[in-house]
Amino acid sequence: MSTRPERPAARRAGRRPGTSGTREAILAAAGQQFAEHGYDRASLRGIAAEAGVDQKLIAHFFGSKQQLFVAAVGLPFNPGDVLPAILAGDPDSIGERLAALLVEVLEQPELHRRLTGVVRAAASEPEVARMLREFLTRELFGPAAEFLGAEDGPFRANLVGSQIVGLVMARYVIAIEPLATISPNAVAAAVAPTLQRYLLGPLGPDDRDR
Amino acid sequence: MSTRPERPAARRAGRRPGTSGTREAILAAAGQQFAEHGYDRASLRGIAAEAGVDQKLIAHFFGSKQQLFVAAVGLPFNPGDVLPAILAGDPDSIGERLAALLVEVLEQPELHRRLTGVVRAAASEPEVARMLREFLTRELFGPAAEFLGAEDGPFRANLVGSQIVGLVMARYVIAIEPLATISPNAVAAAVAPTLQRYLLGPLGPDDRDR
Repeated sequence: MSTRPERPAARRAGRRPGTSGTREAILAAAGQQFAEHGYDRASLRGIAAEAGVDQKLIAHFFGSKQQLFVAAVGLPFNPGDVLPAILAGDPDSIGERLAALLVEVLEQPELHRRLTGVVRAAASEPEVARMLREFLTRELFGPAAEFLGAEDGPFRANLVGSQIVGLVMARYVIAIEPLATISPNAVAAAVAPTLQRYLLGPLGPDDRDR
Repeated sequence: MSTRPERPAARRAGRRPGTSGTREAILAAAGQQFAEHGYDRASLRGIAAEAGVDQKLIAHFFGSKQQLFVAAVGLPFNPGDVLPAILAGDPDSIGERLAALLVEVLEQPELHRRLTGVVRAAASEPEVARMLREFLTRELFGPAAEFLGAEDGPFRANLVGSQIVGLVMARYVIAIEPLATISPNAVAAAVAPTLQRYLLGPLGPDDRDR
């Protein structure tokens, strides 16, 4: 699992003067452009123009548009990096692997702080909700649905997302008891069968009205 | 199901002049006192003092502290009013009844607007999160856990809450597709088994670490 934080890298010792300023300018421009245009329509060209830097510097500092978004929004890690490890392996334990990863991430204070920050921002700022929606659809739900293969793959990926965001809200943001303080293992065990069914199990008595 | 909106009542025709002003003053004082002291420690006496009215007027306009909170926060209905109907009846279809109610509520624009407003506010304002947490624990999770009887009743009630708040976030606030536009029946069918298991089914391979 890759969970490198992006922002602190700019503050490592030994870099040339000015590097950190450029990186921060790109991040600020990216935040502005993603908020204004959404994830899909924001372009690296537009972000470079907004930051007043050569577009090649974005690739140098961040790599892809996906990675730049992860850094600009403060996501705790790049979902695209961890998806393959979740999807690979025994399909019958995919819910367990996903629940274990989720709980592992949420137990790390810095990652937990960032993820709750993103959820809070998405709840209160429509433009954050929009860019997160576009990012998740393109980089997470899309690939997951492709893996699942079934016609209802996107709906299944959304259902998984609903339980994950709900767990973040209930355990960390609203902090209802005893969920807020119960052991990570107990949370993972309780939630894993839900994720498993949403991904690969039956979704209802039939497919009426869908 | 009782889903009377509380606020619009104050604007009905035919009331005495001044009534609406008193009601609004109580609501404003309640909002302030619940935010400052939380649900548990805020008192009707303190709210009456803050509003500069006789405490009996609160009972006249709103009834109980619970009902006053529902009105002040803008909850779409009093959860305490609907809980008995959910808990009564065949235990094997409790998840179905709860999912059907949830979807019915969320399909009504005014109720949906209010519920998403509460979720947004809880996500972005710690004092709203606190009073909602205290209210839900005392008026919803507590009674639900008592009904469930089992030692892990409160945890089970919390898990149900996590899926419900997650559905509100994913379908309405972040509005991921196709979940945002899929039929209410399909959503209810997909979520019902999750609520059923959280309430009455197995929570994990064992109870380790809980």
